[in-house]
Amino acid sequence: MSNLYSIINGAIVSAQDATISISDLSIQRGYGIFDYFRFIHNQPVFLEEHLNRFYHSAKVMHLPVAQNRDELTAMILELQKRNNLPDSGIRITLTGGYSPDGYNIAQPNLLITQSAFTYNKDNFYKGIRVITYEHQRQLPQVKTIDYLKAIYLQPHIKEHHADDVLYYNQEEVTECPRANFFIVNSREEVITPGNHILRGITREKLLGMDAFRVKEGFIKTADLATAREAFITSTTKNILPVLEINGKPVGDGQPGPITTALFNQLFAFKEIY
Amino acid sequence: MSNLYSIINGAIVSAQDATISISDLSIQRGYGIFDYFRFIHNQPVFLEEHLNRFYHSAKVMHLPVAQNRDELTAMILELQKRNNLPDSGIRITLTGGYSPDGYNIAQPNLLITQSAFTYNKDNFYKGIRVITYEHQRQLPQVKTIDYLKAIYLQPHIKEHHADDVLYYNQEEVTECPRANFFIVNSREEVITPGNHILRGITREKLLGMDAFRVKEGFIKTADLATAREAFITSTTKNILPVLEINGKPVGDGQPGPITTALFNQLFAFKEIY
Repeated sequence: MSNLYSIINGAIVSAQDATISISDLSIQRGYGIFDYFRFIHNQPVFLEEHLNRFYHSAKVMHLPVAQNRDELTAMILELQKRNNLPDSGIRITLTGGYSPDGYNIAQPNLLITQSAFTYNKDNFYKGIRVITYEHQRQLPQVKTIDYLKAIYLQPHIKEHHADDVLYYNQEEVTECPRANFFIVNSREEVITPGNHILRGITREKLLGMDAFRVKEGFIKTADLATAREAFITSTTKNILPVLEINGKPVGDGQPGPITTALFNQLFAFKEIY
Repeated sequence: MSNLYSIINGAIVSAQDATISISDLSIQRGYGIFDYFRFIHNQPVFLEEHLNRFYHSAKVMHLPVAQNRDELTAMILELQKRNNLPDSGIRITLTGGYSPDGYNIAQPNLLITQSAFTYNKDNFYKGIRVITYEHQRQLPQVKTIDYLKAIYLQPHIKEHHADDVLYYNQEEVTECPRANFFIVNSREEVITPGNHILRGITREKLLGMDAFRVKEGFIKTADLATAREAFITSTTKNILPVLEINGKPVGDGQPGPITTALFNQLFAFKEIY
């Protein structure tokens, strides 16, 4: 990040000097929201959808955004111009601000950061291993900065020789900490949980793909053992096959045909310009 | 905080200049722990107990503390000397640090801040009104910086003409976001929940008061309607009577005799030197 810039409340600053007061409510009370989207070959990808979600998250969390969409978009484009990173990720964070009493929301701080990111297609073929864990994210429909449980669980995940955790709520599978979850069932339907989850942008795109039978539905923990295929989706991961759940292979332990077909369609749609 | 000092990773800085990089994991992912204790007439109160809990919280959350107890204590006393605030609160925060990937724990940042605080005995007689809300804090036994739900609920609390929220898990009453909860039942026993809660230092002191029948037990939401008295405890609130729950008075809506007797004993023990 040697020569990169960030934006704090509209001011462009060197990323190395991008600081906020420790009285900010994110540091004091873990209170904030964010969104993250990518530039691919200098084009912002699904920017409108990400901004929609950002403003929605802010509203739900009672955080007034001083910048309207045009102003926020102008800042993002200015940052992209300065940093000159054709392939990158932009994170927009909105915190609870400098709270005089350390508890109640003040004027939010808006932080925009950018870092290089290039999608590596090899990741698709490697896939990932997950373990299940009973936990329900609080306010799951909002993209908050709360990843307390996910980071707390990192050693647990490593001990179990897995790459990520798959949450479930009672018997209902929900999502991964930073990705939505899908299975392909024995009827070749592609199912993703519809409740108690964050509505990921990649997830929404898949639900809109008419050529495939992608739909919302319940996935019980017991369904995981019989799933033909499984995968997760996110802005950085696109579609990533889940090849092992709790130490047992999904299907034959290789990326399945429907997962691969969906991936190819998403890839052609999103990553190639 | 015009002339106050803070300490960041051992360095004394003006509170106005106390900043950290926005790459810190508290800002990025809401990851951190803290503790808070008071100086009363220049004496740190229950410092050992608070440091015990601080190091315990850090350990559970996989956050290495670079400073041992003696070093941390020396820093606190140095800060107290500089700020010259005989009656005050000290907050020690430990964050996930400047994480290169914005997700995994790095070298934690240690932040120590101080602000004036004098306990106002009038608050006891005013008491508070609470509303119940179904929510289970994640990792409740650890004093994390996660107050997402509590701050999110502030407008909801105000709409219901209440001062705070009392959480319950299924039918089991647990705690307030920043305080432990107690009732006095019809057998004049003083009961506080023993599970799914933070073990507050004031709570522990009350459990150790032999003259009263204070003990851990289950409090069902249905028990709230028949409680003779109710109160909360915290480092800043000491004992604060709960005079109304969900719009209905507790007992006769005044601080009860057992609550008052406990308060007088705690006050004599803690606030007067």
